[in-house]
Order: sequence, then structure tokens, then C-alpha cells
Amino acid sequence: MNTWGNVLKLSIFGESHGPAIGITIGGYPPGIVIDADFIASEMARRAPGQGSHITARKEADHVQILSGIKDNVSEGSPICGIITNTGQHSDDYKNIPFRPGHADETAFIKYKGFADMRGSGHFSGRITAPLVFAGALAKIALKKAFNTEINGKIVRIAGETDETKFMDSIDAAKKEGDSLGGIIEVAAVNVPGGLGEPFFTSAESHIAELLFSVPAVKGVEFGSGFNMAEMKGSEANRDNHNGGILGGITNGKPLIVRVCIKPTPSIAKDGVTGRHDPCIVPRALPVIEACAALALLDLSFEAQRYSPWIK
Amino acid sequence: MNTWGNVLKLSIFGESHGPAIGITIGGYPPGIVIDADFIASEMARRAPGQGSHITARKEADHVQILSGIKDNVSEGSPICGIITNTGQHSDDYKNIPFRPGHADETAFIKYKGFADMRGSGHFSGRITAPLVFAGALAKIALKKAFNTEINGKIVRIAGETDETKFMDSIDAAKKEGDSLGGIIEVAAVNVPGGLGEPFFTSAESHIAELLFSVPAVKGVEFGSGFNMAEMKGSEANRDNHNGGILGGITNGKPLIVRVCIKPTPSIAKDGVTGRHDPCIVPRALPVIEACAALALLDLSFEAQRYSPWIK
Amino acid sequence: MNTWGNVLKLSIFGESHGPAIGITIGGYPPGIVIDADFIASEMARRAPGQGSHITARKEADHVQILSGIKDNVSEGSPICGIITNTGQHSDDYKNIPFRPGHADETAFIKYKGFADMRGSGHFSGRITAPLVFAGALAKIALKKAFNTEINGKIVRIAGETDETKFMDSIDAAKKEGDSLGGIIEVAAVNVPGGLGEPFFTSAESHIAELLFSVPAVKGVEFGSGFNMAEMKGSEANRDNHNGGILGGITNGKPLIVRVCIKPTPSIAKDGVTGRHDPCIVPRALPVIEACAALALLDLSFEAQRYSPWIK
Amino acid sequence: MNTWGNVLKLSIFGESHGPAIGITIGGYPPGIVIDADFIASEMARRAPGQGSHITARKEADHVQILSGIKDNVSEGSPICGIITNTGQHSDDYKNIPFRPGHADETAFIKYKGFADMRGSGHFSGRITAPLVFAGALAKIALKKAFNTEINGKIVRIAGETDETKFMDSIDAAKKEGDSLGGIIEVAAVNVPGGLGEPFFTSAESHIAELLFSVPAVKGVEFGSGFNMAEMKGSEANRDNHNGGILGGITNGKPLIVRVCIKPTPSIAKDGVTGRHDPCIVPRALPVIEACAALALLDLSFEAQRYSPWIK
Repeated sequence: MNTWGNVLKLSIFGESHGPAIGITIGGYPPGIVIDADFIASEMARRAPGQGSHITARKEADHVQILSGIKDNVSEGSPICGIITNTGQHSDDYKNIPFRPGHADETAFIKYKGFADMRGSGHFSGRITAPLVFAGALAKIALKKAFNTEINGKIVRIAGETDETKFMDSIDAAKKEGDSLGGIIEVAAVNVPGGLGEPFFTSAESHIAELLFSVPAVKGVEFGSGFNMAEMKGSEANRDNHNGGILGGITNGKPLIVRVCIKPTPSIAKDGVTGRHDPCIVPRALPVIEACAALALLDLSFEAQRYSPWIK
Repeated sequence: MNTWGNVLKLSIFGESHGPAIGITIGGYPPGIVIDADFIASEMARRAPGQGSHITARKEADHVQILSGIKDNVSEGSPICGIITNTGQHSDDYKNIPFRPGHADETAFIKYKGFADMRGSGHFSGRITAPLVFAGALAKIALKKAFNTEINGKIVRIAGETDETKFMDSIDAAKKEGDSLGGIIEVAAVNVPGGLGEPFFTSAESHIAELLFSVPAVKGVEFGSGFNMAEMKGSEANRDNHNGGILGGITNGKPLIVRVCIKPTPSIAKDGVTGRHDPCIVPRALPVIEACAALALLDLSFEAQRYSPWIK
Repeated sequence: MNTWGNVLKLSIFGESHGPAIGITIGGYPPGIVIDADFIASEMARRAPGQGSHITARKEADHVQILSGIKDNVSEGSPICGIITNTGQHSDDYKNIPFRPGHADETAFIKYKGFADMRGSGHFSGRITAPLVFAGALAKIALKKAFNTEINGKIVRIAGETDETKFMDSIDAAKKEGDSLGGIIEVAAVNVPGGLGEPFFTSAESHIAELLFSVPAVKGVEFGSGFNMAEMKGSEANRDNHNGGILGGITNGKPLIVRVCIKPTPSIAKDGVTGRHDPCIVPRALPVIEACAALALLDLSFEAQRYSPWIK
Repeated sequence: MNTWGNVLKLSIFGESHGPAIGITIGGYPPGIVIDADFIASEMARRAPGQGSHITARKEADHVQILSGIKDNVSEGSPICGIITNTGQHSDDYKNIPFRPGHADETAFIKYKGFADMRGSGHFSGRITAPLVFAGALAKIALKKAFNTEINGKIVRIAGETDETKFMDSIDAAKKEGDSLGGIIEVAAVNVPGGLGEPFFTSAESHIAELLFSVPAVKGVEFGSGFNMAEMKGSEANRDNHNGGILGGITNGKPLIVRVCIKPTPSIAKDGVTGRHDPCIVPRALPVIEACAALALLDLSFEAQRYSPWIK
């Protein structure tokens, strides 16, 4: 259950304060040139320390590739990338009672107190770093084969939808010792038609399954999403309100997905000490893109199954 | 990909105008008394023909059990239930060009014209009938083991949130030859804590994966969902805004999930003939409940894996 | 667990004395002409009643197709085929204590007495009939895409390897109220190279997994199999001792697999009444071929995943 | 496909001459004390350099645990263990043409020359080292919950079945520049009854699937295996000829499985230079045990699914 994918096979591991976190990606095609700078730039988008708004923690997030890539070219064998944990301040989290809005209690229910929950352990948002690495690989593969481009943007931070004011809102929350959530929209263009299945592995199902494993995601919608509930059929049938997916299968139009990110539960106001982002939405952006890329790549693998029979 | 579940194994089949539709449920526990009346009543909730607002089609939706249940008791072996298709008016759908908002085009892209798309074929909402059957079995098992209760309600039809006016809205849309969508909320109480995994098989992931295979679902949210994006952390941490799931794992509080159902794309206004519901939200209600029940049952199976080691 | 396959998805169901047995095949390509006569002839190879050596039971084994095939052409949607059970003599099996060599006891351990074990229930060799149906579909698809041919033969019945004497051996055992086992060899030619994975889904793993679900199979070997244990490397490296698979991946040479079939445990000598085959090896032949065909078809689907990247 | 398991989730990675090899084990129960000395002793059983008969290569095979275990106790989160590759002599394998009996050609067919095949790369027997690590964890868990013990022995080296003469046979083959295969038998006692499913995930299927992913395994048999083909039913029904599995489900008797290991294909006689074992059977012993342990642990997880319903 720490694995995901039907043909592409992800396997994730690691705790925030353990020796390392990482991911293994099975099924990745051979012969793909892996641009190390692109990987690094994607990792940097998720890394902390990029501005005054962001946590002061220092996470290098350098991915060390243990297998599957040689001389910057994929081999076809499983790719394992790890990120060594360094400079974690474990004492920050000692003897903390169950924090509201966190996984502390559910981890205790499930693992009976054996989980190392320092820094939220395996539940930490830090575990999304390996996902961004895997997502970067997926973007490269999709770009090469189909010229697919996947780009996200923040469309809302709390009540604010004006992009230029997002940072001010975050600053204000920080001063209050509080935190903010928001909404991210990802659009994928040049998505091949025919990805997804009518049932159980609909394109929406597969993308949403992955997105909902990202901590803090509490909602996922496609196309006009919940707004479609308020449209009449005559309106909903027009344009790309379905977000590039009909009957569970992509139609080649831009694939649009939106997720809501809840406000960081760790807040000074609740007496939680330590260095925490007042708003993780900016850092979540590459994670959400990564999920979309990985789901589309897996679906594109499955969609090839008919190729010897149907041209 | 027409299969779903990690330990519980669903496999669905059938076309709207083929001989029969059905589902096989593997992994269901033995020794459970299956109340045939309850099954029938759940099927009736999804069946058409219940009022003036609803399609005039006559679908018996009687489930014939081919295996796995003997003398109303589950055997432990796979349960296959089928529903024979009768009285379909195939001519209604002859030579229809790709209808907007439908799977007609994506089915063509994927299956190159070989899919029998009469009545939307394997993409028909009718294929959710077997899901309701499976969901009824899941409700019975969850009730017996954990006293879990799963109940849904319509919280919005188009712009209307007043329950007493839903039917008027639907009537008005019907007269216009148009259709309406809405929002369904399902609450599950007495859900055991500890269901779900931190990553990839979070409770949200698993439930959403199944919900998004239901035709017409375009959004899924848990707890306060997209509204959490507008809360501050200090507010979001309180109450049950997380909808009974934290860190991907259930915490024993009521599990709350909401889905949006898009308006039926088949509308007279667009020149589509045939008998179509102006609003499928009421009939979708038991389908959404069924998905929640099936996902929780599967997660409850997985959660047992530790039982020989941890009491 | 009643499902099998990574991209091709099999789901099997049914008890020997229930209403029907059947299988659903997901992922089968659209547009393939299904020769109903070929299906019937494959089913006939497994059916009883073909000679004096064989059980006198009358099983029609006519497959009724519920979905996924229209006008003898596959649609791309899941194919469900069922076989109605008729004329079962349930009384033959009433109140039988656990029979040696049967699943009676293990079924009781697992299902606590709730399994309908008349005619061995879901454990019956009869459940392999749907596999033969699915295997026939797989043979058709493999033949069309790759010209693959899959043929089996009996290479041993008990101590006898002379084909012309097999029936005499069986007759002799029948007279003694005893039963015989044997060895079946299946060869597949024109198998595409590159099927299978280095680990966990090696071609051997995938084929063997399916073969070992056939009741009565107690051993599986590839190429020269157990005989390779006695060869020196200098000999083993020559010819096709590896049976067309190296490093878990097919090399295009004939794929050779052998299985041992244990003697039928139901014997008059042990006081078991009813009509039983003194030797099921002849009827198992098409079942073993079916497994090989299904495993190769699934592997061929997976092997297509690289096609957008590598020509 | 580099992943295995239904509830227990293995994911393997690494090339013989890459930075590291490793495995991630998901689903392992929390709270289990992991005896580091036992892990080391199991790794040592597979490591080379134990005698004159064995390869002179120096492989430390120290497992570095990156996650999931803290202070020698399992946490419940995925366990990743890696083994750093050091001191590989890459030049030994430069420009080698396809070697007979190796994966060289099939790797080329599948990965189009992009796989790093130095030391056989991801196809190397070295990749079984992480399996031994995972198997040691499985043995510990099975021992704790069920007191299960899993032990293997060599029953044949080439034509020799006298244990005291195995090393002489290997020495003789080494002098000839040739290699030998053999047969390993593993017995598991105190296996809980009720593990496995009637179809597709029979205990035999699940164990064999894993065993056949071990390079060099070309045959798998249970109980009396291929010898059962030569017995009459009256004999086969007695004793434990079925090797503790009936109808695909364990019956609590000792589970017996045998595998054949083909002779090492790398032989001086064929002009292959480098340091190669003349017989890998002794080192394969802990690998085969590991597979049995892992398959039984996964099956034991699945078997718990009924526990809330059936006591």
C-alpha cells in the first residue's frame, strides 16, 4: 500500500528524521535522457528556504540515484532515488502530545506507538520530495513521447484570488501565528486521447488516487468540478467543462485538475513550536504537478496494450 | 482495470444493451447472512420509474446470484451477481453522432468503433447497478462487524439547497428540455479507526478512486473539503473539518465525503431523443453510498493484517 | 485473489453445484473476431464424456457470453462468459467426511463450513472450464498479433511414456478403482522476444503463478527443468534447455513448460462413490495450454508499454 | 513489475555495478524486534568468500536500513534496506558478446542496449541479496506470530545426492572450468492452516511466483511434486505427498517445496573470464528460504481479513 501504479510502479519510503527518504520507480522506459538540472530545479521548487514566507529549515533535497540511470540515461531497470536527511532538530518534537489536525493520533491508532513521529515521520510533507523526483522523470518521458506539458498555478490562497496579493496574505497569517490553505490548478496539454478506462481506472480515478495521498489535500475536482453541479446540461456540455476527460477517458483537450490544500495544522497559535510554513501551497505546487504527470504516464503505458492489434 | 480493490476484489462487466450486466466480488467473508430484501431495496433506490421526475424506462434490476451465496449465507467464494437486460429500445440510439458531454468520442478513440455504444454501452450509468448490489453486501458486512452505518443525502440540486424544492427545480429543467446536477454528501458513522495508509492508499485515495469511476462524478472532497482552503489553521484544526481522516487514516469520527454530479449530458435541448433523467442525482445517491461502503470494507480487510502481531 | 493478471484482468467465480460458473476477462483488445466454433472445440477438449476412459457425467459446457463481444467481434469492454450448471447429482456428495487428498479439510479451515462443497464447490476441477474459454480468447489474440501457436501434449501417464499405451494404463487403473497422474508439456512457438521482467514478473513467475492455480498441478518446470540440475553448465548453455526464457524474459525460441498432474484423489478404492475420472490428464491438457496463452497475452500487453519511446 | 505481494509489498532495485542495490518492504507489522545479528547471519549465508569452492569476490553485503526500523524495532512504515556496491571490477565485463545461458540477449531485446549489463546488471544473482534481507524480516515475523520455522537443505548437486560428497563434485567441476546445478528443498513447519486461495492466489501459485523470479530457478514442485505424476491415487492420498497444501490452501502440515537451480552459465570452458562460482546452489539456499518466508507472510496477512467476522 506504499506502492502505486498499474504498469508504472512507485514504492515510497522514509521518515522525516530517519536516515533517508526515497522512492523506487519501476517500469520507466529505457533510453530516456534524464536532465539532472531539470530534476534539481523541480526539487528546488518544493524545497524550503526560498523566501521570507517560508520555513527556515534547511533541506538540501539532493537526490542521489542508486539505480536505473547510468550516464544520465535511463536503463529500463527500476530507478531508486534517495534524499539523505541531515540537520534535523529532533528535539523540537520531543514529547509532543497529539497535535490537532495532524496524523499523530491516527498513527498511534494504526501503529500502536511504534512509528517514529519526530517531524511527523512517514506522515511528513517531506515525504513528497521523492514524489517530485519521480514526477520530474514522468514529465520528461511524457514530453518526449507526446510533447505533453504539465503546469500548475495557485488560484487561491485562503479568500484571496489575486495572485499579486498571495504573499501579503501569507505574511499576515504568519504574524498571527496562524496558517493558510489554498487551491492549486494543474493543466496538462498535449495529453494523448484514449487514456483511462470506463470503470475503476478512469483517468479521474487514477489521478485522484495519487493526489489524495499527498498530505493536506482534502478535495480534487476535474474541469469545472463542483461548479458543474450548478450548471444546466446545456451549459455543461459546452466548452471543456469536463476538463479533458469524458467517460473516464481523455479526449485530447487540456486536462484540468484542481486540488484544495488545507492550512498547515502546525501553528504557533496552538502552541506548536518549531519552524513551520504558514502556507505550504507554494511548495505543494510541484507535488501536485508530479502526481498528474505520474498518473498520466502510467495510463499511457496501459493504453499501449492494444497496439499490436489496433493501429 | 475493470477490477478494483486490494483485498476485496471487484470485477465489473456489461453493456447497457447486451445480454446482462454484473459484478463479481472476491474476498467477501463467509458466514454472513445476506438479507435479500435489503439487497432489493437498495437496488430499488437506484432503479428508474419511481416518480414523474424520473425516466420512464423500465429496468427491473433484479440481481440473480450465480455464485458465492447459498441459502442466503455467504460462502467465502467469489459472489457473482448479474442483472439481465430486457426491453431495451436499441433503435433509440441508432446512428447517433458523437453527443456532447458523453463518452461517445472517447470510446471511439479508445476502442476504434468496436464498442457497442447503444445506450452508452459499457459507459452507461446503468453499469452502476451492479455496484449498488456490491455496496449492499459491503454495508451488511460493515454493519455486522463494526456497526458501521453509511447514509447519504442530497445537499444541492443546481443552485438549490432547500431540500423541499429539489423536485420543483428538476421539473422546471425537464420542461426546458434541460438537465441539472447536484452534490451528494455521505456520512459513515462507527468507522473503525486505523483504516487507510499514509501514502498511496490513504482512506481518501481509496474512496476517491472508486467514486471517480462513477459516471458523472467530477469532484470529491472530504470533511470541509474545498472550504478548508479558505480557513485558517486555527479554525481547520477544530471540530471534524478533516471528515474523520487524518494522515490518510481514519480516526473513528464520522467520515464525511461529498461528490458533485454533473448534469445529465443527454438533453432534448441538444436534440437527443430517448427517455433520459433530467437529473440523476437522486438515483446516484445509493451508488455513492455503495462506493463508500466498498472502499471502507476493503480498507478494513487490509487493517487486519497486523492482528496476529498487535492486539 | 480470485483475480489474476497485471493488464489482462481475469476474475473467476462459481461452484460446481451452484447456478453457474464463469469468468470475466478485462483488457482484451477490441476488434478481434471471435470464432465461436474454435471456442466450442476448445471447451469440448476439456469436457467429459469423450470415451470409455472418462467420467460418465454430462456437462454441456456451453459458454454464454454476457458482455464484451457483439456479433462475434470483441468490443474492448470486459468479456464475461458463463456456463450454467445443469443435471448435478447433489446427493452423491452428501455428508461425505473430509476426503483424503481433497480440499475438503482446507476449505473447512478457511471458510468455517460455509463453503458449498458439493462436487468440491469452488475447488472443483470444473472451475477450469471458464479458464479454457478465456484461454481460447487469448490464443486467438496471440495468433492474430504474433502468429503465436500454443500446443500441448501428454508426455507421461504414471510410469508410461509411450503415447499409444496411455489408454491401457488408464483402463487398468479404473478397474482397480484407482487413479493415475501424468505430465503435460506445452510448447509455444512464435512467442515475441522481450516478454517478462527480470524480477517478480519473470515470464516463468507469471506462467507458473497461473498454472499452480489449476487444481492437481503440483510441479512446474521450464525448458529442461529439473533435469538442468543434473547438467553441467557447458551442456545447459547449449540448445534450448532454458525453454525460451533467459533472465526471466522470452528470447523468441520455443517456450517450453511442463506440469505434473497428480492422480485424482477421488477413488473407489478409498470408498469415494460418484463418477470420477480415473485420470484427468487428458482433460487437463487444454487447461494447461489456456494458462500458458493467458500468461503470454498479459505479458505481451505489458511489453508494449515502451512502444512510444522505443521502436 | 519490480514489485511483488498482495498486502506485503516488495519493491526491488539495483544493478550489480551501480551505486547500490536494495529493497523496500511495505506492510510489515510494527513493534517487531529486529535482531541485527540474525539479519547479518542470513546475509552471510548468501555472501561469497566462504570457502575454496566459492567465488573469490568480496561482497560485504552489509544492509544499511534507511527507514521503517528505529532502535531495532519495526515502526509499521515501509522498510528500505540498501547494500552499497564496492570494489566491482567493471573491466572484467567490458565488451563481452552475448554469453550463452545468460540474460545478455534478452536484456538487449527488452531494453535496446540501454541496460548496464556489467556484472549482469539488474539480472545479477547479486540482486537476490536484498531478498535475503527481506526474507530474514519475514522469518522473524512468522516465528513471532506462529512459531513458524523455515529451513532448507541441498538435496542434490548434479547427479550426487550424498551430502558429504557435494564439495568434491563442485571441486571437480571447477577444475574442468565447468559448473554444476542442483536441487534445494525447503520445509516450513508450524505454518498456519488456511493460507492461500482456491484460485489464482493458491499457496503454490504465490510461493512459485516469487521463487521463479530468482535467477537460475527453472523448476518448482510441492510435496512429492513431479513424482506424484507416477503415483496412483491410493498412494498419493496418503502421508504428506501434497506438501502441506490442498486445494491451494495450507493444511497445517509441513509445507514442502523444491526448486531446481541450473548450473551457472558463466564458465571458463565457454571462454568467460572473471570470478564465478562453479556452483551457486549453496549460496542460493537462503534465497529460496527467503522466498518461502515472504510468500507465507504475505498469505498470512491476507488470511486475517476474515477475523472481524469469523473467530
